[in-house]
Amino acid sequence: MVITIGREFGSGGRELGRRLSENLGFAYYDKEIITGIAERTNLSEDYVHQIIEHKPIFSYPIHIGRSFYPIHDPIIRQNQEIYSEQHKIIKEMAEKSDCVIVGRCADYILRDMKPYRIFVYADMESKIARCRRKAPENESLTDKEMSNEIKKIDKNRAKYYLFYTDQTWGERMNYDLMINTTGKDIKKLAEFLAILVRQTP
Amino acid sequence: MVITIGREFGSGGRELGRRLSENLGFAYYDKEIITGIAERTNLSEDYVHQIIEHKPIFSYPIHIGRSFYPIHDPIIRQNQEIYSEQHKIIKEMAEKSDCVIVGRCADYILRDMKPYRIFVYADMESKIARCRRKAPENESLTDKEMSNEIKKIDKNRAKYYLFYTDQTWGERMNYDLMINTTGKDIKKLAEFLAILVRQTP
Repeated sequence: MVITIGREFGSGGRELGRRLSENLGFAYYDKEIITGIAERTNLSEDYVHQIIEHKPIFSYPIHIGRSFYPIHDPIIRQNQEIYSEQHKIIKEMAEKSDCVIVGRCADYILRDMKPYRIFVYADMESKIARCRRKAPENESLTDKEMSNEIKKIDKNRAKYYLFYTDQTWGERMNYDLMINTTGKDIKKLAEFLAILVRQTP
Repeated sequence: MVITIGREFGSGGRELGRRLSENLGFAYYDKEIITGIAERTNLSEDYVHQIIEHKPIFSYPIHIGRSFYPIHDPIIRQNQEIYSEQHKIIKEMAEKSDCVIVGRCADYILRDMKPYRIFVYADMESKIARCRRKAPENESLTDKEMSNEIKKIDKNRAKYYLFYTDQTWGERMNYDLMINTTGKDIKKLAEFLAILVRQTP
């Protein structure tokens, strides 16, 4: 059994995924995916993380990234290589054991395995509050700046998801369950989800 | 405690709401709302149902329906009267006891009471199958025709919701939980929702 979690930045999706995996006794994959890609591609973890989360290359027309013609641009090639390794690693993880996988288009990559697909979201106020709790003490962003950063990260996630899956990130039909964590106790939500997932369908 | 359920036509939202109310021992309101409006407005139940579910009047600019100027068109007045009675009835129901209310903008009307807002959806194939199971034996619509009917009903629900709430129907931020019933056992979903709702937050 595989559970995939898409999430808005700051919504607590990662915490929910980790707690859910603990409740179920499942493996949990998140940053492990980036570490794996870095090892296999000989790129640094920071670089892989930057490509996947923050600065994927989308300024080229989509058909280039998907055509069968050789791609000469080394940056595009590197993006393709990273996605291709990500694809392989996620498949290997899912085949190895029951697991929870956070982000990285896993819902799409594993669609043949019919994963239970969760999307986690929250209102901006609650996402800012969460980011403040996790920020270093010398964090100096205003609420407005933080909100812009959060929106930028999610916009990139949406672009990345669209680019590789042809689907809209956060569109309900791509998920089995969508959870708003605003004002909710994530620990309790995870307990409930563990019961729900065990009994599905 | 109030639970509101928005739902795509054919998704099983009504069944989920009814079962959830039974599991929780809550009152359940659905068609009762229409009966109540009909009684208070001296309009027939069929007519009220038609206005609310199928043929609301939206062809007038929104500001007319909301302005303080007297409205001379009798059809618009009737629509406004129906919405106004619906508003009152839903408030009375929610204040009387814990309850589950299906549809009718209840999530918006009761927003000050912070209801637990659920949205239920499913893929088209599963909605058609559900409609077939519920249809009379002499039902002669093709799948294509049935799909068009389902889309039409949901389009009207979306318009009605937008008209009275200024919000997008089915947009995740307006709900606490969104559930895809495709391939799922609604009876079991209702059991788990009862657990979740009892624990909230």
